[in-house]
Amino acid sequence: MRALFSEATAVEPSDDALRVDGAAGTTTRWSGNIAEGWAIAGNANGGYVLAIAGRAMTAALGRPDPVTVTAHYLAPGQPGPVSVVVDITKQGRKFGTATAKVADEKRVILQVLGTFGDLADVAGPELIDVEPPPMPPPDKCTPMPVSDPSRPPFMGNVDLQLHPEDAGFLHGEPSGNALMRGWFRLHNEEAVDAIALLCAADSFPPAIFNTTLPRGWTPTMELTVHVRSRPGSGWLRCRFATRFVTGGFLEETGELWDDDGRLVAQSRQLALVPRD
Amino acid sequence: MRALFSEATAVEPSDDALRVDGAAGTTTRWSGNIAEGWAIAGNANGGYVLAIAGRAMTAALGRPDPVTVTAHYLAPGQPGPVSVVVDITKQGRKFGTATAKVADEKRVILQVLGTFGDLADVAGPELIDVEPPPMPPPDKCTPMPVSDPSRPPFMGNVDLQLHPEDAGFLHGEPSGNALMRGWFRLHNEEAVDAIALLCAADSFPPAIFNTTLPRGWTPTMELTVHVRSRPGSGWLRCRFATRFVTGGFLEETGELWDDDGRLVAQSRQLALVPRD
Repeated sequence: MRALFSEATAVEPSDDALRVDGAAGTTTRWSGNIAEGWAIAGNANGGYVLAIAGRAMTAALGRPDPVTVTAHYLAPGQPGPVSVVVDITKQGRKFGTATAKVADEKRVILQVLGTFGDLADVAGPELIDVEPPPMPPPDKCTPMPVSDPSRPPFMGNVDLQLHPEDAGFLHGEPSGNALMRGWFRLHNEEAVDAIALLCAADSFPPAIFNTTLPRGWTPTMELTVHVRSRPGSGWLRCRFATRFVTGGFLEETGELWDDDGRLVAQSRQLALVPRD
Repeated sequence: MRALFSEATAVEPSDDALRVDGAAGTTTRWSGNIAEGWAIAGNANGGYVLAIAGRAMTAALGRPDPVTVTAHYLAPGQPGPVSVVVDITKQGRKFGTATAKVADEKRVILQVLGTFGDLADVAGPELIDVEPPPMPPPDKCTPMPVSDPSRPPFMGNVDLQLHPEDAGFLHGEPSGNALMRGWFRLHNEEAVDAIALLCAADSFPPAIFNTTLPRGWTPTMELTVHVRSRPGSGWLRCRFATRFVTGGFLEETGELWDDDGRLVAQSRQLALVPRD
Protein backbone atom coordinates (compact mmCIF):
# COMPACT_ATOMS: atom_id res chain seq x y z
CA MET A 1 0.00 0.00 0.00
CA ARG A 2 1.55 3.26 -1.08
CA ALA A 3 -0.17 6.39 0.16
CA LEU A 4 0.88 10.00 0.07
CA PHE A 5 2.64 10.90 3.29
CA SER A 6 0.63 14.10 3.54
CA GLU A 7 -2.59 12.05 3.48
CA ALA A 8 -1.26 9.39 5.83
CA THR A 9 -0.45 12.07 8.43
CA ALA A 10 -3.49 14.33 7.95
CA VAL A 11 -5.58 15.38 10.94
CA GLU A 12 -9.09 16.79 11.21
CA PRO A 13 -10.03 19.29 13.90
CA SER A 14 -12.80 18.49 16.33
CA ASP A 15 -15.64 20.99 16.41
CA ASP A 16 -14.06 22.58 19.46
CA ALA A 17 -10.80 23.13 17.66
CA LEU A 18 -12.61 25.24 15.09
CA ARG A 19 -13.92 27.60 17.73
CA VAL A 20 -10.75 28.49 19.63
CA ASP A 21 -8.18 31.10 18.72
CA GLY A 22 -4.96 29.22 19.41
CA ALA A 23 -4.03 31.33 22.44
CA ALA A 24 -1.93 30.06 25.33
CA GLY A 25 -3.96 27.89 27.69
CA THR A 26 -6.29 26.46 25.05
CA THR A 27 -6.79 22.75 24.48
CA THR A 28 -7.86 21.40 21.10
CA ARG A 29 -8.69 17.89 19.90
CA TRP A 30 -7.80 16.44 16.53
CA SER A 31 -8.47 13.12 14.89
CA GLY A 32 -6.05 11.27 12.68
CA ASN A 33 -5.37 7.79 11.48
CA ILE A 34 -2.38 5.50 11.65
CA ALA A 35 -2.42 4.17 8.09
CA GLU A 36 -1.53 0.67 7.03
CA GLY A 37 1.89 0.35 5.53
CA TRP A 38 4.00 2.49 7.89
CA ALA A 39 5.01 -0.26 10.30
CA ILE A 40 8.38 -1.69 11.21
CA ALA A 41 8.32 -5.06 12.96
CA GLY A 42 4.55 -4.72 13.34
CA ASN A 43 4.54 -1.27 14.97
CA ALA A 44 4.02 2.06 13.22
CA ASN A 45 7.28 3.88 12.61
CA GLY A 46 7.85 6.35 15.45
CA GLY A 47 8.76 9.24 13.20
CA TYR A 48 5.61 8.70 11.17
CA VAL A 49 3.38 8.86 14.29
CA LEU A 50 5.28 11.95 15.45
CA ALA A 51 4.46 13.57 12.11
CA ILE A 52 0.73 13.07 12.82
CA ALA A 53 1.24 14.91 16.11
CA GLY A 54 3.22 17.55 14.23
CA ARG A 55 0.31 18.17 11.85
CA ALA A 56 -2.06 18.77 14.77
CA MET A 57 0.42 21.00 16.61
CA THR A 58 1.16 23.15 13.59
CA ALA A 59 -2.57 23.58 12.98
CA ALA A 60 -3.37 24.31 16.63
CA LEU A 61 -0.55 26.82 16.96
CA GLY A 62 -1.08 28.40 13.55
CA ARG A 63 2.64 28.13 12.82
CA PRO A 64 3.95 26.22 9.82
CA ASP A 65 7.22 24.66 10.96
CA PRO A 66 8.45 22.55 13.87
CA VAL A 67 11.64 24.11 15.26
CA THR A 68 12.33 21.70 18.10
CA VAL A 69 10.13 18.72 18.88
CA THR A 70 10.57 15.98 21.47
CA ALA A 71 8.49 12.79 21.60
CA HIS A 72 8.43 10.20 24.38
CA TYR A 73 7.23 6.85 23.05
CA LEU A 74 4.87 5.15 25.47
CA ALA A 75 3.11 2.41 23.49
CA PRO A 76 3.37 0.95 19.99
CA GLY A 77 1.15 2.45 17.33
CA GLN A 78 -1.20 0.17 15.39
CA PRO A 79 -3.23 1.00 12.28
CA GLY A 80 -6.50 2.70 13.13
CA PRO A 81 -7.90 5.98 14.40
CA VAL A 82 -5.98 8.12 16.87
CA SER A 83 -6.77 11.29 18.75
CA VAL A 84 -4.33 14.13 19.24
CA VAL A 85 -4.92 16.51 22.15
CA VAL A 86 -2.89 19.70 21.91
CA ASP A 87 -2.37 22.02 24.90
CA ILE A 88 -0.84 25.37 24.06
CA THR A 89 1.64 26.57 26.68
CA LYS A 90 2.75 29.82 25.09
CA GLN A 91 2.22 31.91 21.99
CA GLY A 92 5.08 34.35 21.60
CA ARG A 93 5.99 36.78 18.88
CA LYS A 94 8.09 34.38 16.82
CA PHE A 95 7.42 30.96 18.34
CA GLY A 96 4.60 28.95 19.89
CA THR A 97 5.02 26.06 22.34
CA ALA A 98 2.60 23.21 22.98
CA THR A 99 2.35 19.68 24.34
CA ALA A 100 0.44 16.97 22.51
CA LYS A 101 -0.74 13.49 23.34
CA VAL A 102 -1.42 10.92 20.62
CA ALA A 103 -3.69 8.12 21.82
CA ASP A 104 -5.71 5.28 20.40
CA GLU A 105 -8.86 3.97 22.05
CA LYS A 106 -6.89 2.17 24.72
CA ARG A 107 -3.81 4.15 25.60
CA VAL A 108 -1.42 7.02 25.03
CA ILE A 109 1.04 6.21 22.24
CA LEU A 110 3.24 9.24 22.53
CA GLN A 111 3.64 12.43 24.49
CA VAL A 112 5.12 15.34 22.59
CA LEU A 113 6.55 18.76 23.48
CA GLY A 114 7.32 21.14 20.65
CA THR A 115 8.08 24.72 19.73
CA PHE A 116 6.96 25.81 16.29
CA GLY A 117 7.67 28.86 14.16
CA ASP A 118 8.18 29.99 10.60
CA LEU A 119 11.40 28.90 8.95
CA ALA A 120 10.63 30.63 5.64
CA ASP A 121 13.06 33.45 6.13
CA VAL A 122 15.51 32.58 8.84
CA ALA A 123 18.82 34.43 8.75
CA GLY A 124 21.91 34.92 10.84
CA PRO A 125 25.63 34.24 10.90
CA GLU A 126 26.71 30.82 9.69
CA LEU A 127 29.39 28.63 11.20
CA ILE A 128 29.45 25.06 10.04
CA ASP A 129 32.05 22.63 11.21
CA VAL A 130 31.05 19.67 9.12
CA GLU A 131 30.42 18.96 5.48
CA PRO A 132 27.47 16.84 4.32
CA PRO A 133 28.59 13.20 4.47
CA PRO A 134 30.20 12.16 1.19
CA MET A 135 28.20 9.35 -0.45
CA PRO A 136 27.84 7.77 -3.85
CA PRO A 137 24.80 9.07 -5.74
CA PRO A 138 21.50 7.37 -4.80
CA ASP A 139 21.51 5.01 -7.81
CA LYS A 140 24.94 3.74 -6.75
CA CYS A 141 23.77 3.04 -3.21
CA THR A 142 22.09 -0.05 -1.78
CA PRO A 143 18.28 0.06 -1.68
CA MET A 144 16.54 -1.18 1.44
CA PRO A 145 14.71 -4.15 -0.08
CA VAL A 146 10.94 -3.84 -0.28
CA SER A 147 9.89 -6.94 -2.18
CA ASP A 148 11.18 -9.28 0.52
CA PRO A 149 8.24 -10.04 2.83
CA SER A 150 10.58 -10.10 5.82
CA ARG A 151 11.35 -6.42 5.25
CA PRO A 152 9.24 -3.77 6.97
CA PRO A 153 6.25 -2.42 5.03
CA PHE A 154 7.51 1.06 6.00
CA MET A 155 10.17 0.64 3.37
CA GLY A 156 7.46 0.53 0.71
CA ASN A 157 6.46 4.11 1.53
CA VAL A 158 9.89 5.67 1.72
CA ASP A 159 12.89 5.22 -0.54
CA LEU A 160 16.07 4.54 1.40
CA GLN A 161 19.35 4.08 -0.42
CA LEU A 162 22.08 3.03 2.00
CA HIS A 163 25.74 3.93 1.68
CA PRO A 164 27.29 0.69 0.40
CA GLU A 165 29.86 0.78 3.23
CA ASP A 166 27.00 0.72 5.77
CA ALA A 167 24.74 -1.81 4.04
CA GLY A 168 26.69 -4.96 4.89
CA PHE A 169 24.42 -5.75 7.84
CA LEU A 170 21.68 -6.60 5.31
CA HIS A 171 23.57 -9.78 4.46
CA GLY A 172 25.11 -10.43 7.87
CA GLU A 173 28.31 -8.45 7.40
CA PRO A 174 28.10 -5.40 9.67
CA SER A 175 30.79 -2.78 9.06
CA GLY A 176 31.88 -2.71 12.69
CA ASN A 177 31.12 1.01 12.98
CA ALA A 178 27.88 2.25 14.58
CA LEU A 179 27.20 4.38 11.53
CA MET A 180 24.30 4.41 9.05
CA ARG A 181 24.45 6.75 6.08
CA GLY A 182 22.08 6.97 3.17
CA TRP A 183 19.59 8.85 1.06
CA PHE A 184 15.94 9.38 1.99
CA ARG A 185 12.95 10.45 -0.01
CA LEU A 186 9.23 9.85 0.17
CA HIS A 187 7.77 7.42 -2.30
CA ASN A 188 6.71 8.81 -5.68
CA GLU A 189 9.07 11.72 -5.01
CA GLU A 190 6.48 13.45 -2.83
CA ALA A 191 8.02 16.68 -1.52
CA VAL A 192 9.50 16.48 1.98
CA ASP A 193 8.18 19.35 4.09
CA ALA A 194 9.40 20.31 7.56
CA ILE A 195 6.92 17.86 9.15
CA ALA A 196 8.16 15.00 6.98
CA LEU A 197 11.64 15.62 8.38
CA LEU A 198 10.31 14.29 11.70
CA CYS A 199 9.66 11.00 9.91
CA ALA A 200 12.95 11.03 8.00
CA ALA A 201 14.81 11.43 11.30
CA ASP A 202 13.53 8.03 12.44
CA SER A 203 13.49 6.16 9.15
CA PHE A 204 16.85 4.40 8.94
CA PRO A 205 17.84 1.07 10.46
CA PRO A 206 19.59 1.64 13.82
CA ALA A 207 23.28 2.52 13.45
CA ILE A 208 24.11 -0.26 15.93
CA PHE A 209 23.00 -2.81 13.31
CA ASN A 210 26.54 -2.29 12.00
CA THR A 211 28.08 -3.46 15.29
CA THR A 212 28.35 -6.77 17.09
CA LEU A 213 25.38 -5.93 19.34
CA PRO A 214 22.29 -8.09 18.88
CA ARG A 215 20.14 -6.89 15.97
CA GLY A 216 16.51 -6.56 16.88
CA TRP A 217 13.81 -4.16 17.90
CA THR A 218 15.54 -1.06 19.29
CA PRO A 219 12.67 0.77 20.97
CA THR A 220 12.96 4.55 20.93
CA MET A 221 12.23 6.06 24.34
CA GLU A 222 12.69 9.65 23.26
CA LEU A 223 13.33 11.41 19.97
CA THR A 224 14.20 15.09 19.60
CA VAL A 225 14.39 16.76 16.20
CA HIS A 226 15.68 20.27 15.57
CA VAL A 227 14.47 21.51 12.19
CA ARG A 228 16.95 24.09 10.92
CA SER A 229 15.53 24.82 7.49
CA ARG A 230 12.75 23.78 5.15
CA PRO A 231 14.30 21.27 2.76
CA GLY A 232 14.62 21.88 -0.95
CA SER A 233 13.40 19.29 -3.40
CA GLY A 234 15.17 16.00 -4.06
CA TRP A 235 16.86 13.42 -1.90
CA LEU A 236 17.93 14.02 1.70
CA ARG A 237 21.46 13.01 2.60
CA CYS A 238 21.40 11.44 6.08
CA ARG A 239 23.95 10.32 8.62
CA PHE A 240 23.14 8.50 11.87
CA ALA A 241 25.67 7.40 14.47
CA THR A 242 25.75 5.93 17.96
CA ARG A 243 28.67 6.65 20.25
CA PHE A 244 27.58 5.40 23.66
CA VAL A 245 25.87 2.14 24.56
CA THR A 246 25.77 1.93 28.36
CA GLY A 247 23.47 0.53 31.02
CA GLY A 248 20.92 -0.77 28.54
CA PHE A 249 20.55 2.60 26.78
CA LEU A 250 21.98 4.02 23.61
CA GLU A 251 21.85 7.41 21.92
CA GLU A 252 21.68 7.91 18.20
CA THR A 253 22.34 11.28 16.62
CA GLY A 254 21.35 12.22 13.09
CA GLU A 255 22.12 14.92 10.58
CA LEU A 256 19.87 15.49 7.57
CA TRP A 257 21.02 17.58 4.64
CA ASP A 258 19.07 18.56 1.56
CA ASP A 259 20.17 18.32 -2.04
CA ASP A 260 21.51 21.87 -1.95
CA GLY A 261 23.95 20.90 0.81
CA ARG A 262 22.06 22.67 3.60
CA LEU A 263 21.71 21.14 7.04
CA VAL A 264 17.92 20.85 7.40
CA ALA A 265 17.60 18.90 10.66
CA GLN A 266 19.49 17.37 13.52
CA SER A 267 18.06 14.54 15.57
CA ARG A 268 18.97 12.67 18.70
CA GLN A 269 17.19 9.76 20.29
CA LEU A 270 17.53 7.67 23.42
CA ALA A 271 16.70 4.02 22.76
CA LEU A 272 16.81 0.74 24.61
CA VAL A 273 19.46 -1.73 23.57
CA PRO A 274 17.96 -4.73 21.75
CA ARG A 275 18.01 -8.01 23.63
CA ASP A 276 19.46 -11.25 22.37
CA MET B 1 25.19 33.89 48.70
CA ARG B 2 26.18 30.23 48.81
CA ALA B 3 23.34 27.82 49.45
CA LEU B 4 23.18 24.07 49.19
CA PHE B 5 21.93 23.07 45.74
CA SER B 6 19.56 20.55 47.30
CA GLU B 7 17.94 23.34 49.34
CA ALA B 8 17.91 25.81 46.47
CA THR B 9 15.99 23.29 44.32
CA ALA B 10 13.68 21.85 46.99
CA VAL B 11 9.93 21.70 46.40
CA GLU B 12 6.99 21.26 48.77
CA PRO B 13 3.86 19.38 47.74
CA SER B 14 0.52 21.13 47.79
CA ASP B 15 -2.09 19.48 49.97
CA ASP B 16 -3.54 17.87 46.87
CA ALA B 17 -0.21 16.32 45.97
CA LEU B 18 -0.23 14.45 49.28
CA ARG B 19 -3.55 12.80 48.52
CA VAL B 20 -2.91 11.33 45.07
CA ASP B 21 -1.21 8.08 44.24
CA GLY B 22 0.98 9.12 41.33
CA ALA B 23 -1.01 7.18 38.74
CA ALA B 24 -1.27 8.18 35.10
CA GLY B 25 -3.71 11.02 34.57
CA THR B 26 -3.10 12.70 37.92
CA THR B 27 -2.08 16.34 38.27
CA THR B 28 -0.15 17.57 41.29
CA ARG B 29 1.02 21.01 42.34
CA TRP B 30 4.30 21.83 44.01
CA SER B 31 5.82 25.03 45.31
CA GLY B 32 9.46 25.96 45.04
CA ASN B 33 11.65 29.00 45.06
CA ILE B 34 14.15 30.44 42.64
CA ALA B 35 16.89 31.35 45.10
CA GLU B 36 19.15 34.38 44.87
CA GLY B 37 22.58 33.65 43.57
CA TRP B 38 21.83 31.32 40.64
CA ALA B 39 21.55 33.95 37.93
CA ILE B 40 23.57 34.54 34.80
CA ALA B 41 23.20 37.98 33.24
CA GLY B 42 20.29 38.66 35.58
CA ASN B 43 18.27 35.52 34.79
CA ALA B 44 18.28 32.26 36.74
CA ASN B 45 20.44 29.61 35.13
CA GLY B 46 18.25 27.38 32.96
CA GLY B 47 19.68 24.13 34.25
CA TYR B 48 19.08 25.26 37.82
CA VAL B 49 15.38 26.02 37.14
CA LEU B 50 15.09 22.69 35.32
CA ALA B 51 16.40 20.98 38.44
CA ILE B 52 13.52 22.50 40.46
CA ALA B 53 11.12 20.94 37.93
CA GLY B 54 13.07 17.69 38.20
CA ARG B 55 12.59 17.59 41.99
CA ALA B 56 8.82 17.93 41.57
CA MET B 57 8.66 15.35 38.79
CA THR B 58 10.70 12.76 40.65
CA ALA B 59 8.47 13.25 43.71
CA ALA B 60 5.22 13.13 41.72
CA LEU B 61 6.28 10.02 39.80
CA GLY B 62 7.87 8.29 42.79
CA ARG B 63 10.95 7.52 40.72
CA PRO B 64 14.39 8.71 41.76
CA ASP B 65 16.22 9.50 38.53
CA PRO B 66 15.60 11.52 35.38
CA VAL B 67 16.40 9.34 32.35
CA THR B 68 15.54 11.78 29.58
CA VAL B 69 14.27 15.28 30.23
CA THR B 70 13.48 18.08 27.78
CA ALA B 71 12.80 21.69 28.77
CA HIS B 72 11.51 24.48 26.56
CA TYR B 73 12.46 27.87 27.99
CA LEU B 74 9.63 30.35 27.69
CA ALA B 75 10.51 33.24 30.02
CA PRO B 76 13.46 34.21 32.21
CA GLY B 77 13.39 33.05 35.82
CA GLN B 78 13.74 35.64 38.58
CA PRO B 79 14.28 35.05 42.30
CA GLY B 80 11.04 34.35 44.11
CA PRO B 81 8.39 31.68 44.52
CA VAL B 82 7.44 29.39 41.64
CA SER B 83 4.79 26.75 41.19
CA VAL B 84 5.39 23.44 39.44
CA VAL B 85 2.37 21.62 38.01
CA VAL B 86 3.11 17.99 37.11
CA ASP B 87 0.79 15.96 34.85
CA ILE B 88 1.56 12.25 34.76
CA THR B 89 1.12 10.74 31.29
CA LYS B 90 2.14 7.16 32.02
CA GLN B 91 3.37 4.96 34.83
CA GLY B 92 4.97 1.85 33.40
CA ARG B 93 6.84 -1.00 34.97
CA LYS B 94 10.29 0.55 34.76
CA PHE B 95 9.66 4.16 33.76
CA GLY B 96 7.21 6.98 34.38
CA THR B 97 6.54 9.91 32.04
CA ALA B 98 5.19 13.33 32.94
CA THR B 99 4.99 16.92 31.77
CA ALA B 100 5.64 19.83 34.10
CA LYS B 101 5.16 23.57 33.96
CA VAL B 102 7.23 25.92 36.11
CA ALA B 103 5.59 29.32 36.53
CA ASP B 104 5.91 32.43 38.63
CA GLU B 105 2.98 34.66 39.48
CA LYS B 106 2.93 36.17 36.02
CA ARG B 107 3.91 33.56 33.46
CA VAL B 108 5.19 30.13 32.55
CA ILE B 109 8.99 30.00 32.77
CA LEU B 110 9.51 26.55 31.36
CA GLN B 111 7.61 23.57 30.00
CA VAL B 112 9.18 20.19 30.66
CA LEU B 113 8.67 16.65 29.40
CA GLY B 114 10.52 13.86 31.15
CA THR B 115 10.76 10.14 31.66
CA PHE B 116 12.08 9.01 35.01
CA GLY B 117 13.24 5.67 36.37
CA ASP B 118 15.76 4.09 38.69
CA LEU B 119 19.37 4.14 37.54
CA ALA B 120 20.69 2.34 40.61
CA ASP B 121 21.27 -0.95 38.89
CA VAL B 122 21.29 -0.45 35.17
CA ALA B 123 23.12 -3.07 33.16
CA GLY B 124 23.66 -4.12 29.59
CA PRO B 125 26.31 -4.41 26.91
CA GLU B 126 28.75 -1.53 26.68
CA LEU B 127 30.08 0.04 23.52
CA ILE B 128 31.84 3.33 23.94
CA ASP B 129 33.42 5.13 21.06
CA VAL B 130 34.94 8.00 22.92
CA GLU B 131 37.21 8.47 25.90
CA PRO B 132 36.54 11.14 28.53
CA PRO B 133 38.13 14.35 27.27
CA PRO B 134 41.75 14.62 28.41
CA MET B 135 42.24 17.65 30.65
CA PRO B 136 44.74 18.90 33.18
CA PRO B 137 43.63 18.23 36.78
CA PRO B 138 41.20 20.81 38.20
CA ASP B 139 43.86 22.75 40.08
CA LYS B 140 45.81 23.22 36.85
CA CYS B 141 42.74 24.55 35.04
CA THR B 142 41.43 28.11 34.84
CA PRO B 143 38.74 28.98 37.39
CA MET B 144 35.73 30.96 36.22
CA PRO B 145 36.32 34.10 38.25
CA VAL B 146 33.81 34.77 41.02
CA SER B 147 35.21 37.84 42.77
CA ASP B 148 34.77 40.02 39.70
CA PRO B 149 31.38 41.74 40.00
CA SER B 150 30.90 41.49 36.24
CA ARG B 151 30.89 37.68 36.52
CA PRO B 152 27.61 35.87 37.03
CA PRO B 153 26.59 35.14 40.63
CA PHE B 154 25.87 31.58 39.44
CA MET B 155 29.60 31.03 39.43
CA GLY B 156 29.65 31.54 43.21
CA ASN B 157 27.48 28.44 43.68
CA VAL B 158 29.27 26.08 41.34
CA ASP B 159 32.97 25.50 40.84
CA LEU B 160 33.97 25.56 37.19
CA GLN B 161 37.56 24.98 36.18
CA LEU B 162 38.02 25.54 32.46
CA HIS B 163 40.48 23.72 30.27
CA PRO B 164 43.27 26.30 29.77
CA GLU B 165 43.01 25.84 25.99
CA ASP B 166 39.33 26.89 26.13
CA ALA B 167 39.64 29.73 28.65
CA GLY B 168 41.18 32.34 26.37
CA PHE B 169 37.82 34.00 25.74
CA LEU B 170 37.94 35.25 29.35
CA HIS B 171 40.61 37.74 28.31
CA GLY B 172 39.47 38.33 24.75
CA GLU B 173 41.46 35.56 23.08
CA PRO B 174 38.97 32.92 21.92
CA SER B 175 40.54 29.66 20.78
CA GLY B 176 38.75 29.69 17.44
CA ASN B 177 37.10 26.33 18.15
CA ALA B 178 33.48 26.13 19.36
CA LEU B 179 34.58 23.94 22.25
CA MET B 180 34.32 24.40 26.02
CA ARG B 181 35.85 21.79 28.29
CA GLY B 182 36.20 21.88 32.03
CA TRP B 183 35.49 20.47 35.46
CA PHE B 184 32.24 20.99 37.37
CA ARG B 185 31.30 20.51 40.97
CA LEU B 186 28.81 22.07 43.33
CA HIS B 187 30.15 24.53 45.86
CA ASN B 188 31.39 23.11 49.17
CA GLU B 189 31.80 19.79 47.36
CA GLU B 190 28.09 18.99 47.77
CA ALA B 191 27.41 15.64 46.11
CA VAL B 192 26.06 15.82 42.54
CA ASP B 193 22.97 13.63 42.25
CA ALA B 194 21.15 12.77 39.03
CA ILE B 195 19.01 15.92 39.32
CA ALA B 196 22.07 18.12 39.73
CA LEU B 197 23.31 16.77 36.40
CA LEU B 198 20.46 18.74 34.79
CA CYS B 199 22.11 21.87 36.17
CA ALA B 200 25.64 20.82 35.29
CA ALA B 201 24.53 20.28 31.68
CA ASP B 202 23.74 24.01 31.38
CA SER B 203 26.47 25.49 33.58
CA PHE B 204 29.34 26.30 31.23
CA PRO B 205 29.81 29.39 29.09
CA PRO B 206 28.55 28.75 25.55
CA ALA B 207 31.06 26.93 23.37
CA ILE B 208 30.64 29.64 20.74
CA PHE B 209 32.35 32.11 23.10
CA ASN B 210 35.50 30.57 21.66
CA THR B 211 34.60 31.64 18.11
CA THR B 212 34.37 34.94 16.29
CA LEU B 213 30.60 35.14 16.81
CA PRO B 214 29.39 37.96 19.04
CA ARG B 215 29.60 37.04 22.73
CA GLY B 216 26.42 37.75 24.60
CA TRP B 217 23.28 36.24 25.99
CA THR B 218 22.70 32.96 24.14
CA PRO B 219 19.13 32.12 25.09
CA THR B 220 18.40 28.40 25.32
CA MET B 221 15.17 27.49 23.53
CA GLU B 222 15.31 23.81 24.38
CA LEU B 223 17.57 21.61 26.48
CA THR B 224 17.47 17.81 26.54
CA VAL B 225 19.50 15.80 29.01
CA HIS B 226 19.92 12.03 28.95
CA VAL B 227 21.10 10.79 32.33
CA ARG B 228 23.00 7.56 31.81
CA SER B 229 24.21 6.85 35.32
CA ARG B 230 24.20 8.32 38.82
CA PRO B 231 27.54 10.07 39.18
CA GLY B 232 30.16 9.02 41.68
CA SER B 233 31.70 11.56 44.03
CA GLY B 234 34.17 14.19 42.93
CA TRP B 235 34.51 16.50 39.95
CA LEU B 236 32.61 16.01 36.69
CA ARG B 237 34.62 16.17 33.51
CA CYS B 238 32.59 18.05 30.88
CA ARG B 239 32.86 18.75 27.18
CA PHE B 240 30.53 21.04 25.23
CA ALA B 241 30.74 21.73 21.51
CA THR B 242 28.76 23.49 18.78
CA ARG B 243 29.00 22.32 15.21
CA PHE B 244 26.23 24.14 13.38
CA VAL B 245 25.27 27.80 13.56
CA THR B 246 22.64 28.43 10.89
CA GLY B 247 19.61 30.65 10.42
CA GLY B 248 19.92 32.29 13.82
CA PHE B 249 20.03 28.96 15.69
CA LEU B 250 22.81 26.88 17.13
CA GLU B 251 23.00 23.50 18.79
CA GLU B 252 25.35 22.65 21.62
CA THR B 253 26.01 19.08 22.67
CA GLY B 254 27.54 18.05 25.96
CA GLU B 255 29.10 15.00 27.52
CA LEU B 256 29.49 14.71 31.28
CA TRP B 257 31.76 12.11 32.82
CA ASP B 258 32.30 11.33 36.48
CA ASP B 259 35.59 10.93 38.26
CA ASP B 260 35.53 7.17 37.66
CA GLY B 261 35.53 7.78 33.90
CA ARG B 262 31.86 6.85 33.39
CA LEU B 263 29.65 8.76 31.00
CA VAL B 264 26.91 10.04 33.32
CA ALA B 265 24.96 12.33 31.00
CA GLN B 266 24.65 13.63 27.48
CA SER B 267 23.01 16.93 26.70
CA ARG B 268 21.93 18.83 23.64
CA GLN B 269 20.39 22.24 23.42
CA LEU B 270 18.99 24.50 20.71
CA ALA B 271 19.81 28.15 21.36
CA LEU B 272 19.45 31.46 19.61
CA VAL B 273 22.61 33.03 18.28
CA PRO B 274 23.59 36.11 20.31
CA ARG B 275 23.19 39.47 18.59
CA ASP B 276 25.88 42.08 18.16
